[in-house]
Amino acid sequence: MDQSQTPENSSYLNTVASVAIAPSGQGEELSTYVAQAIEVIRDSGLPNETNAMSTVIEGDLGQVMQTVEKATRVLAEQGYRTGVTLKLDIRQGKRDQIHRKVELIDEILSARKD
Amino acid sequence: MDQSQTPENSSYLNTVASVAIAPSGQGEELSTYVAQAIEVIRDSGLPNETNAMSTVIEGDLGQVMQTVEKATRVLAEQGYRTGVTLKLDIRQGKRDQIHRKVELIDEILSARKD
Amino acid sequence: MDQSQTPENSSYLNTVASVAIAPSGQGEELSTYVAQAIEVIRDSGLPNETNAMSTVIEGDLGQVMQTVEKATRVLAEQGYRTGVTLKLDIRQGKRDQIHRKVELIDEILSARKD
Amino acid sequence: MDQSQTPENSSYLNTVASVAIAPSGQGEELSTYVAQAIEVIRDSGLPNETNAMSTVIEGDLGQVMQTVEKATRVLAEQGYRTGVTLKLDIRQGKRDQIHRKVELIDEILSARKD
Repeated sequence: MDQSQTPENSSYLNTVASVAIAPSGQGEELSTYVAQAIEVIRDSGLPNETNAMSTVIEGDLGQVMQTVEKATRVLAEQGYRTGVTLKLDIRQGKRDQIHRKVELIDEILSARKD
Repeated sequence: MDQSQTPENSSYLNTVASVAIAPSGQGEELSTYVAQAIEVIRDSGLPNETNAMSTVIEGDLGQVMQTVEKATRVLAEQGYRTGVTLKLDIRQGKRDQIHRKVELIDEILSARKD
Repeated sequence: MDQSQTPENSSYLNTVASVAIAPSGQGEELSTYVAQAIEVIRDSGLPNETNAMSTVIEGDLGQVMQTVEKATRVLAEQGYRTGVTLKLDIRQGKRDQIHRKVELIDEILSARKD
Repeated sequence: MDQSQTPENSSYLNTVASVAIAPSGQGEELSTYVAQAIEVIRDSGLPNETNAMSTVIEGDLGQVMQTVEKATRVLAEQGYRTGVTLKLDIRQGKRDQIHRKVELIDEILSARKD
């Protein structure tokens, strides 16, 4: 059985998300604020990777939405105008898409180069 | 007091959201699926407006996130690969931004034309 | 022939876009900046509608991308850190999707209520 | 002079973008289509990194928009309904933000753990 296919718990909705959370109105240097939101995501225990435009997370839909809301509140509850962009890719039965999706692209493109 | 400023309940985090929820892999005509998700949003009681690319909603952060998750589950729990794009603009103390933000732009641009 | 289907010019790639352009670091009130970008879109001659979270545009892919870049430059070339979120729905042969997509949803949902 | 600050060519608008391009209506397995669009980006010569939800690119605003349009056309001109989500972070005078932004977050968070 391919590791990325585990249907046992059918209520589990595997969700890969990319999220970016930032205040507006606090100057052009946003890293110290963005870091507070990313810290919540890193402390969530969900697999996550940060790139220059977002943090990618993977987990059950409910866990992901809870983590995103918690990370958003860290800034919004300090009274900052807070912007969030969130993108979800939900596939029941799948696992470890945070790596598999990229591996698959690399495999396809290297096969095309051969 | 400007209607769009009501600070009484300070835990209320006014959130304007734009959300788009659609399945992939179910053919190019997506309206019947998208309509199921929008129906959940319309039944939520939150102010909402649908345009060609998203549905705009306004409410407290918690209400908005709950409504988006519920609308997403309508498709994802049928087993469809489901994509969601969500954008939030959170401003404590504000109200009726779903209309005010557009009115403000129109006021500014008509003043520039005079 | 349904008005939204006109295949004559097959190089025409009908594109519905939702775009939001704003500076960061210029305070929490962004309307005067956002209005400058929306003015470029409104002056483009492309069908467009502004809602609280974005401006929806329709046209050929090339026209839409040019208009978005021009609207973005209005702020970025003033030296502001500028954020853009853009979503495209491209369907060759379609027309007037800026209205048709919403009408279709309303038709489906009112039929479900009957 | 910090490598990420090079103001010589003031018309250069440093842009970090995250882009995702996919067809809808072609089944749930999208990798072979997404790979065609990513190949255009990789062949562009612009610094780029692919994660599970998008490909991050860095370059001048004009180069980035051209590359995104070219990658989009690879699918759209085959007649597929094509969806694009694009996010831009534009900062005149900056360079190598594709790495610097992530390093800064890691530095801030590791300093908070100490």
